[in-house]
Amino acid sequence: MQAKFPSESFTILTDLVLPSETNPLNNLFGGELLARMDRAASISARRHSRRITVTASVNHVAFNKSIPLGSVVTVEAKVSRSFRTSMEIFIDVWVEDRESGNRTKANEAIYTFVAVDETGHPVEVPAIDPQTDEEKSRFDAALRRKQLSLVLAGKMKPSDATELKALFL
Amino acid sequence: MQAKFPSESFTILTDLVLPSETNPLNNLFGGELLARMDRAASISARRHSRRITVTASVNHVAFNKSIPLGSVVTVEAKVSRSFRTSMEIFIDVWVEDRESGNRTKANEAIYTFVAVDETGHPVEVPAIDPQTDEEKSRFDAALRRKQLSLVLAGKMKPSDATELKALFL
Amino acid sequence: MQAKFPSESFTILTDLVLPSETNPLNNLFGGELLARMDRAASISARRHSRRITVTASVNHVAFNKSIPLGSVVTVEAKVSRSFRTSMEIFIDVWVEDRESGNRTKANEAIYTFVAVDETGHPVEVPAIDPQTDEEKSRFDAALRRKQLSLVLAGKMKPSDATELKALFL
Amino acid sequence: MQAKFPSESFTILTDLVLPSETNPLNNLFGGELLARMDRAASISARRHSRRITVTASVNHVAFNKSIPLGSVVTVEAKVSRSFRTSMEIFIDVWVEDRESGNRTKANEAIYTFVAVDETGHPVEVPAIDPQTDEEKSRFDAALRRKQLSLVLAGKMKPSDATELKALFL
Amino acid sequence: MQAKFPSESFTILTDLVLPSETNPLNNLFGGELLARMDRAASISARRHSRRITVTASVNHVAFNKSIPLGSVVTVEAKVSRSFRTSMEIFIDVWVEDRESGNRTKANEAIYTFVAVDETGHPVEVPAIDPQTDEEKSRFDAALRRKQLSLVLAGKMKPSDATELKALFL
Amino acid sequence: MQAKFPSESFTILTDLVLPSETNPLNNLFGGELLARMDRAASISARRHSRRITVTASVNHVAFNKSIPLGSVVTVEAKVSRSFRTSMEIFIDVWVEDRESGNRTKANEAIYTFVAVDETGHPVEVPAIDPQTDEEKSRFDAALRRKQLSLVLAGKMKPSDATELKALFL
Repeated sequence: MQAKFPSESFTILTDLVLPSETNPLNNLFGGELLARMDRAASISARRHSRRITVTASVNHVAFNKSIPLGSVVTVEAKVSRSFRTSMEIFIDVWVEDRESGNRTKANEAIYTFVAVDETGHPVEVPAIDPQTDEEKSRFDAALRRKQLSLVLAGKMKPSDATELKALFL
Repeated sequence: MQAKFPSESFTILTDLVLPSETNPLNNLFGGELLARMDRAASISARRHSRRITVTASVNHVAFNKSIPLGSVVTVEAKVSRSFRTSMEIFIDVWVEDRESGNRTKANEAIYTFVAVDETGHPVEVPAIDPQTDEEKSRFDAALRRKQLSLVLAGKMKPSDATELKALFL
Repeated sequence: MQAKFPSESFTILTDLVLPSETNPLNNLFGGELLARMDRAASISARRHSRRITVTASVNHVAFNKSIPLGSVVTVEAKVSRSFRTSMEIFIDVWVEDRESGNRTKANEAIYTFVAVDETGHPVEVPAIDPQTDEEKSRFDAALRRKQLSLVLAGKMKPSDATELKALFL
Repeated sequence: MQAKFPSESFTILTDLVLPSETNPLNNLFGGELLARMDRAASISARRHSRRITVTASVNHVAFNKSIPLGSVVTVEAKVSRSFRTSMEIFIDVWVEDRESGNRTKANEAIYTFVAVDETGHPVEVPAIDPQTDEEKSRFDAALRRKQLSLVLAGKMKPSDATELKALFL
Repeated sequence: MQAKFPSESFTILTDLVLPSETNPLNNLFGGELLARMDRAASISARRHSRRITVTASVNHVAFNKSIPLGSVVTVEAKVSRSFRTSMEIFIDVWVEDRESGNRTKANEAIYTFVAVDETGHPVEVPAIDPQTDEEKSRFDAALRRKQLSLVLAGKMKPSDATELKALFL
Repeated sequence: MQAKFPSESFTILTDLVLPSETNPLNNLFGGELLARMDRAASISARRHSRRITVTASVNHVAFNKSIPLGSVVTVEAKVSRSFRTSMEIFIDVWVEDRESGNRTKANEAIYTFVAVDETGHPVEVPAIDPQTDEEKSRFDAALRRKQLSLVLAGKMKPSDATELKALFL
């Protein structure tokens, strides 16, 4: 299977914050944004793998900035690294000021998807070939995050997580 | 007010066809696609005008190709021409084949939006300066469509619709 | 197949404007009304054809009057003309004042539906036999609209659109 | 306040059974039908009272007939009797066979609504003047149901429920 | 089939009142609460019967207390009595004050569900063995309600409804 | 402010997997489960703080087990540790087999919420006093997760994350 560029899985979902998606402060519900990012990420994973893809995990997501009712929100998703049957998707969320047109980063998130066949069994996916500096830096960090997942899930001994250990020493 | 380029209002809404959006043949409901195109077009109109925008009319929309459950659908919207307080938005809808990754045009639509202030009164919008051949051709056709709307609404005499008349003579 | 009366496909969908269907001005979203009209029109087309029906096109729809949250909206749909496998549906939308009980026309729309069999192939539909003056006038205008659609889609030469040409000469 | 005819509050809500409203047997969820009947009944109550109306109670509703996905369902609501600030709404639900066009009764329901002002306080509503035999019979039965409600809520002694007692003696 | 305790079917559904579920007074729509209670009751019926369950009827439901947007609502459902193939489910709805944490009863409802096999045919369900005083009192009252349903549906002569008759004599 | 027990914020949300919440394999969408867990967690945070609460972050969530359409899903949320203005919520998700009644763990998730006043500014929350072994072990681990968040967000130097460092040494 031929390696692909991150740009080949780049996915843009621009949509409004609708009244049914807001919390008591009239901002977008965290849960709704999680669902929207999940859909964008699954399309990105599908574009990379050309397979059915299912959510395997959600890594640390920080909601730094509240997003008011009526905002234009842009969710951008791109495969940052692929493993044998899984893909890490890096998601950037932008909010746009209606009057100035300026857009500011509202938050980042990282999802992992697995590619499966029609019966739900994992299948192999293409490797990824990062091009830009940002793509390369996210590609490198993905391995540390993978080790962190394995450690947190009790599937890897901390002492074997070489990439991660380096971070703390 | 300075004229803007169509590219400044370009809006992409890529999303899945969800189970709650399908008809008895398991294809995307026409009505759901109309709603999704309306949201993308309203964002495009807002990006051009930096105002609240409300749907004024929907011109001819043809549903040439059915879009099955689970498809990845990309709605692309761009202002094709602006009038004093209104904007014509041209929308292209693409469907993506999961396995080959090929995308094919599913349909086109044209919506008109009006820019309004907080009290709902129409306000002026910037002119548009088309750049590409497609943008120029859509810009020219927009005037004929505008005349057609006015004729159909009984607000212009067919004999005064000079651009339109030329089409039939 | 025996011809039918327009009254046999008459469909009424009266419902509230719910909070999840409103835009930032607290009025019904254009896109939501388009979806609601699509459902009413599809039932009307089904009543005429007794077949599965799918949206083929949406003709000019003007949103002349905004419809506030909490309004009672009545969508009325009726087949205005049928062609071999398609039906033109004329839709009237009314809004009702809660205190006076008066209802005013909020907008009109015209949708075209195609009747299909279980595999999605077009099938023939009954002719229509208009009775009232309004039904007759909408029946006549439908042919001009049909020609307009074909011209706009590039499937008919403007010079062959005899009904339409008459309008501009 | 002048009495009104039941026909003045007659409300028709014809709509499709959508995929998001079905249970594991692919029939309309009981809960969804309850919500749809509630909306139709609230419009009927509003048409009678020209006030904001809120659900006060739901009387016995029997689901005799399952309603499959894709069905055309017609909910018809009409005020059957009014009390000082409340109205009993009688609801008939019909399902339509696509091929034959025949419609059969799917179920009946009785809701009670209270008319309120903008602050939520109950206000008086017009009396009702039943015309047809069915309207008269439903009007009479409404008093027995009212007494039954009061008895079940412990607000009337069974021995005082004269209309109801007669039923069992 | 072995009898079960009511506690074995006890079901708790705690959720927020979302903006899309409110009426013009910004309180939870009666219809939405009916749908939510239906889902909780169907789970309770399923836990008792371990079968697919479908709504058979809704008995008297009173909406005594309005529930504002943003409230925490707890729906608690428990089988109160089972008959051959049906189960009566007693539902208590609680609303929680955010600041004090106190919860107050918002309303009660009684639903009846039937257990069915994969083809939709009724199947037998276990008997119920009430334990607490409340469970016993609800168990006893269920028979009166059953007779009331049969009488109201014209399937039992009032004179045969011995339990019910006793109430009025 | 007096410390609270984790049991005081314990929240149960049992509900069905509805057709509108499923992916192409007919299992619950990852994004829908994320939204449902967010609502349960926000209620738990509110019960602990008696304040408005907003999602601050989502920590590692693994989707180990797919959850089919029609399943009964129980989301259980409980505050595991509170910091000055934030609370870590630990969520357990259970799926119930209809026939056997057995329930199995589908996944775990950890959300962080911040308590805010009506203007959206963070306010202090009570401390937590863990009781059971599980509560104590989750309380201890919460500090490591907090440090991990700070390190990943670049707000703490890895060398200062004493609890976390210990894990890798």
